[in-house]
Amino acid sequence: MAANKPKLPKGAVKPREAVLAMEPYHPPTAGRRAKLRLDFNENTVGCSPCVVETLKKLVEAPSLAVYPEYGEAMERIARYFRVRPEQFVFTNGTDEAIQVLMNTYVDDGQEVVILKPSYAMYRFYAQVAGAKLREVEYPEPDMEFPLQEVLEAITLETRAVILANPNNPTGTSIGLLGIERILHRARKAVVMVDEAYYEFSGVTALTEIERIPNLFVSRTFSKVFGMAAMRLGCLFSHAANIEFLHKAQSPYSVNTLAVLAAQAAVADTDYIQNYVAEVLAARELLCVGLEKLGIGYVPSSANFILVRLGGRAIEVRDALRACGILVRDRSYEAPGCVRMTVGTRDQTRRLLSALEEIWKA
Amino acid sequence: MAANKPKLPKGAVKPREAVLAMEPYHPPTAGRRAKLRLDFNENTVGCSPCVVETLKKLVEAPSLAVYPEYGEAMERIARYFRVRPEQFVFTNGTDEAIQVLMNTYVDDGQEVVILKPSYAMYRFYAQVAGAKLREVEYPEPDMEFPLQEVLEAITLETRAVILANPNNPTGTSIGLLGIERILHRARKAVVMVDEAYYEFSGVTALTEIERIPNLFVSRTFSKVFGMAAMRLGCLFSHAANIEFLHKAQSPYSVNTLAVLAAQAAVADTDYIQNYVAEVLAARELLCVGLEKLGIGYVPSSANFILVRLGGRAIEVRDALRACGILVRDRSYEAPGCVRMTVGTRDQTRRLLSALEEIWKA
Repeated sequence: MAANKPKLPKGAVKPREAVLAMEPYHPPTAGRRAKLRLDFNENTVGCSPCVVETLKKLVEAPSLAVYPEYGEAMERIARYFRVRPEQFVFTNGTDEAIQVLMNTYVDDGQEVVILKPSYAMYRFYAQVAGAKLREVEYPEPDMEFPLQEVLEAITLETRAVILANPNNPTGTSIGLLGIERILHRARKAVVMVDEAYYEFSGVTALTEIERIPNLFVSRTFSKVFGMAAMRLGCLFSHAANIEFLHKAQSPYSVNTLAVLAAQAAVADTDYIQNYVAEVLAARELLCVGLEKLGIGYVPSSANFILVRLGGRAIEVRDALRACGILVRDRSYEAPGCVRMTVGTRDQTRRLLSALEEIWKA
Repeated sequence: MAANKPKLPKGAVKPREAVLAMEPYHPPTAGRRAKLRLDFNENTVGCSPCVVETLKKLVEAPSLAVYPEYGEAMERIARYFRVRPEQFVFTNGTDEAIQVLMNTYVDDGQEVVILKPSYAMYRFYAQVAGAKLREVEYPEPDMEFPLQEVLEAITLETRAVILANPNNPTGTSIGLLGIERILHRARKAVVMVDEAYYEFSGVTALTEIERIPNLFVSRTFSKVFGMAAMRLGCLFSHAANIEFLHKAQSPYSVNTLAVLAAQAAVADTDYIQNYVAEVLAARELLCVGLEKLGIGYVPSSANFILVRLGGRAIEVRDALRACGILVRDRSYEAPGCVRMTVGTRDQTRRLLSALEEIWKA
């Protein structure tokens, strides 16, 4: 392996045009150990100790050899989300939720409405499906959800609409009335609301899956639950839709330890509530701190803040990394912006103190 | 949820035609605990104790909260397979390997050559991709690989060929010369050789990935390694092809515990070698036992045997289940046949003794 783009060897088969046209997506996940990781919106203290105890107790050689069984876990997790087991599928992270939705509903050349900036994998899987992308921009400077523009982008040709609520990386949210209008306008399309950061905003469409048959809602165990390493998400919808999703999904895409961990995680709701309360307090602290430094930001409903550093974005990110603090540059999609995960108040104080030194230098 | 086929609610969106046409795939994985599981070709004693120790040691709350990093694991696992890290991708089981291959190379309406009976997911993901299937049958009675028919099925229109070596459920294998002829004949197509059961047959095309640029080889940690619960596979090819696969794959599809477990697993090669030796001895025992009972079977290169029970297939399967022994009915694709996983000699003796009683009844 020499250069960045190895020549296709003689006789190699060319990929699909859709894949050739795609940019590779390599998020900077290497070398993050032992750093304060405010770059991927994870839970910054870790999952509930009950999850770890459960795993240590249940990990044994014979059971690891067996293909996953989801039955019992589905019932317990359904109860936590107040749905019936037949109203959702487990997914290998939210990524598989997006992929299964595309596989089930979107044919080559059909139209998919997404927003930008938003989570990169919506675009990614729409492209893999060969979809025609219709992208609506979050408007500068306040990055509020552009409801009117989204409604206008939806036509009779629209096959799928993917929304993130709250949105990543803007942190801004969509009101339920807005979502309801989109669902109505896009009633010939499937509408997925990705609620990865729901616990920090408290706004959910999940209660509507029975009533509104083109609605799909995704949740994840990678954020507030502190289980990003395990890869577990859930995709909810009307039971009749779920049967179709099953048809386009591998029966074993989620690993056994993830579902065991999730069962333990949903049993410890105090842990989640306490962590959310801590993050909301820390978010307030971070906002006040940024204002004191005269640094702009986008008001957020999630556990991260899009911070406006202008021409100093990359410099500040690198200087923070030198202090052992990782934040994520988003200037390629939101000029001059860096996204900072909100952890605990202690972690936020450490971030602010490093930021103050760098900013005033 | 009442009936088998819930009515699509008013206003629900119809899936793609490709998905509507698919049969749901629900392998009978429920209620297998505490039984002798000879139904899914797993390792019947479990993974190496080193894997369990590693997991118990490394499972802790903060690291579970972090998105997977594969760097170190890729290097160690590359060394085990005698390839370079840039010559493979981790996949979420072999299922994702098939899916990523289809996503990368097969467009709607293009031709894919598969065999039948074979692993159900080749057909599944080819259908999800909207491919035109060209199926070649393993011929009764000996179920030898139909090389001539496969060569004839490959045309200039062929975009992908998927082979299993050894094949599931027949257990029969393909010689390397046959694979080489297919690779040459299908030089405008990608050819994937699924070597899930390689360790029991000893025949591999993996050494050829650098030389033959349309070759893809998959391996799994779900069989001999005893880690089906963890979901980990590897898809190998020329480094230039791997870059394209990366473009069509989620960067986090494999969970952290799976790669930690795999690192421990490949370090304990004695465990694997001993298990393979045990299974090969047990396979001989099973063949001799079947012959004594006058029961026919297909000679196998894998850790399972396709057993010919004729009109008594379902009866025998059910009677074995009543004795706490699970085997898998394959009569829907190989009339009168049941597939029995080969475990240890002790487990095989238990199977034979139950079978003798049932068969003579």
